[in-house]
Amino acid sequence: MIDSVTKDKSRTVLTNGHNEKAWKVVASEAAKNCKNYIRDIVDNLVLEPNPDKQVIALSLGDPTVYGNLSPSKESVEAVLEAIESGKCNGYVPTVGTEEARQAVADYLSFDGVQYDYKDVILCSGCSSSIDLCITVLADANKNHNILTPNPGFPIYRTLAESYGIEVRSYNLIPEEGWIIDLAHLESQIDENTAALVINNPSNPCGSVFSENHLRDILEVAYKYKVPIIADEIYERLVFESTRFVSIAALNSHVPLLICGGTGKRFLVPGWRLGWIVFHDPVGAFDAEIRRGLGCLSQKTIGCNGIVQKALPKILLSTSQSFYDDVTTILYNNAKLAYKIIQDIEGLTVYMPDGTMYMMVKIQLERFPQFSTGLEFMQRLMEEESVFCLPGECFGAPGFMRIIITIPSELIKEACDRMREFCKRYYTK
Amino acid sequence: MIDSVTKDKSRTVLTNGHNEKAWKVVASEAAKNCKNYIRDIVDNLVLEPNPDKQVIALSLGDPTVYGNLSPSKESVEAVLEAIESGKCNGYVPTVGTEEARQAVADYLSFDGVQYDYKDVILCSGCSSSIDLCITVLADANKNHNILTPNPGFPIYRTLAESYGIEVRSYNLIPEEGWIIDLAHLESQIDENTAALVINNPSNPCGSVFSENHLRDILEVAYKYKVPIIADEIYERLVFESTRFVSIAALNSHVPLLICGGTGKRFLVPGWRLGWIVFHDPVGAFDAEIRRGLGCLSQKTIGCNGIVQKALPKILLSTSQSFYDDVTTILYNNAKLAYKIIQDIEGLTVYMPDGTMYMMVKIQLERFPQFSTGLEFMQRLMEEESVFCLPGECFGAPGFMRIIITIPSELIKEACDRMREFCKRYYTK
Ligand SMILES: Cc1ncc(COP(=O)(O)O)c(C=O)c1O
Ligand SMILES: Cc1ncc(COP(=O)(O)O)c(C=O)c1O
Repeated sequence: MIDSVTKDKSRTVLTNGHNEKAWKVVASEAAKNCKNYIRDIVDNLVLEPNPDKQVIALSLGDPTVYGNLSPSKESVEAVLEAIESGKCNGYVPTVGTEEARQAVADYLSFDGVQYDYKDVILCSGCSSSIDLCITVLADANKNHNILTPNPGFPIYRTLAESYGIEVRSYNLIPEEGWIIDLAHLESQIDENTAALVINNPSNPCGSVFSENHLRDILEVAYKYKVPIIADEIYERLVFESTRFVSIAALNSHVPLLICGGTGKRFLVPGWRLGWIVFHDPVGAFDAEIRRGLGCLSQKTIGCNGIVQKALPKILLSTSQSFYDDVTTILYNNAKLAYKIIQDIEGLTVYMPDGTMYMMVKIQLERFPQFSTGLEFMQRLMEEESVFCLPGECFGAPGFMRIIITIPSELIKEACDRMREFCKRYYTK
Repeated sequence: MIDSVTKDKSRTVLTNGHNEKAWKVVASEAAKNCKNYIRDIVDNLVLEPNPDKQVIALSLGDPTVYGNLSPSKESVEAVLEAIESGKCNGYVPTVGTEEARQAVADYLSFDGVQYDYKDVILCSGCSSSIDLCITVLADANKNHNILTPNPGFPIYRTLAESYGIEVRSYNLIPEEGWIIDLAHLESQIDENTAALVINNPSNPCGSVFSENHLRDILEVAYKYKVPIIADEIYERLVFESTRFVSIAALNSHVPLLICGGTGKRFLVPGWRLGWIVFHDPVGAFDAEIRRGLGCLSQKTIGCNGIVQKALPKILLSTSQSFYDDVTTILYNNAKLAYKIIQDIEGLTVYMPDGTMYMMVKIQLERFPQFSTGLEFMQRLMEEESVFCLPGECFGAPGFMRIIITIPSELIKEACDRMREFCKRYYTK
């Protein structure tokens, strides 16, 4: 059959559009521009621990690693029951089952906010939720940009840049509890700004925005008519006197896409359940965005059906004591680390109000041996076998992020080692 | 703080780039171009069943709907054990755990093919696998096109068009067991062809390519140096004397990305486990594509950890009798439907060699009352409460696709009703 067709194209050697070498297949721009900022930085460090000291990784944002934090028994039971029911093997609607979506709506309906299952789209983890939100709002062909926090979680940048969308970061102010520098935020907005991404509570800062600050943010968004993507994956993961206020609770006239999931508060990031929730009192998303997100959810055909089936029980039956225990452990760990690091000369530590993280600034002028924070962290690993994630991963050079999910003995040990290390190199 | 900044931008009403009406937020082209071809067609049909007859849906490609086909007990046990282990709650590498990837490598290493875990990337369902493969190979900015089968599964089009990539379809030949019209395929290739998508065994045709036909396809791909995305989600789901040959087993010099998953053969589409496997003896993917796919897998951070944990047992311990039972049931159903429809005047039925589907052609010239197959199907629903998926969903107007996963009594009943219906309208 091949013989019967014209042969005129056969001499060209084609490699998806490139005539270089036969079969050297070239990756798309989307793939080339899809960067892993954490890995790109960490992989370039020389990380040789001290063979005489056990490594303590204060770097991994995964609460399950050390086994000291486990999911609620209700969550585990819910999944077992789901499997045993034999009713979660088939396809479900790409946006999720009505029951699971209703459970999310109920779970998030507090502080006067009232959601309906139609306001909810389930995704494969919160990363996927953010992916869909950026994709539906921003358009590379229209030169759109999105605004993201600095310091901030690098996935916003990874996703947007993969689509060729410009990322502009706005500053957070460490000295004022990591609130947004609103003047700077405003200066970044132009007519091509498709969305403002906020992350509250914040990774990596551990900060939680006050109601008043949220109002100020909404005012800016309203003034320029920029819809907000609110990454609230750490919702209600806050300490003691801090109250978490969802930006939706302020009931402004700004259309919001709230992203979240079970990964953090329920300690099951591996279960990959995320959501997008519409809060849109002005109906700005009615014409195109709701439909658009529904269509985009086809790309992965939604999230795992087992977890969807289990979701109502996970979200609505987990006991308050589980939540309280988790935040108490995290809070105690935060206080422990804060107390030690506070007294270390050469470091500035920022007490978090929630999440699983804490930011520490390296006063580099006090450590003239190290020209960058990366060098400092490399040496800390080499001598003390303690590894923190460089602030560079979050756009904050000279900082390091430490996690507070590991057992408290290890936190204490790690902070003690940091103190010894700093003592050796601190220069007045 | 807001007061302190310049106000000069505040009078412009911005709606992500459009100055129309305040807050009418516009969807991106990616969202607008992301179509659901099945829903777009089905939603436009008037589907009023006959109230006196129970509806029989021969339309849904989900084997679990009627409860007659259940996952293997090994699969269910594996998931229960995974959850009970408490070891599948955290993050895993975005491409999957080494154990799960190795299990896929082992499961697919047959007929002389030998895979390693490094050749495997896990995804959230096969849809997601295909998504990543198209994304890494094809570039809208370079005017790339991809080639897809007609009739064919519409997700290739949905995904590619969402990225602005041109889709060119190549014909299958119904009279020759739905093999590819190689001359037509060749005529569609140009220097911007980034990938050839083949689907074997085929949805919706139920056809299975012979080794010889696969060789012919590889020859075309080799001649033009077009890499192949091979959607083998129905691998080994073939009947009796038919043998499934993976395109990788032919060990050609064409770089292949094999897509698959547990959804079909293991009857658990809701578990959302898919894979991409590299078969690339010439190393064409080494320079950029392996890395690119690894990066792209960050977008959704891989697939559910529970199912990954369970995967080695699912893939490697499921007994042969499970596979045999499933294919026997499907084969018997196919024969039953074929036998009845074969004798219906006005229809042409194509006996499948595998999968869960069967194609039926409506000889429209014999039914002058209906100007299209859609009208025929609409009326079939109205009078007989039998619903089949229109061939239009797969690019094959005048055909209908029926599923053979439902209980045999219902298949018989549905086919009998079709016969009555055709008898009423058949015109010599
Ligand atoms: C701020 C923030 N958003 C989103 C995510 C992603 O969550 P998921 O694991 O559900 O995709 C993370 C994970 O660390 C995060 O820190
Ligand atoms: C040919 C083909 N490819 C891919 C898929 C998608 O599979 P999954 O449900 O694993 O995403 C399907 C589902 O019906 C299919 O028929």
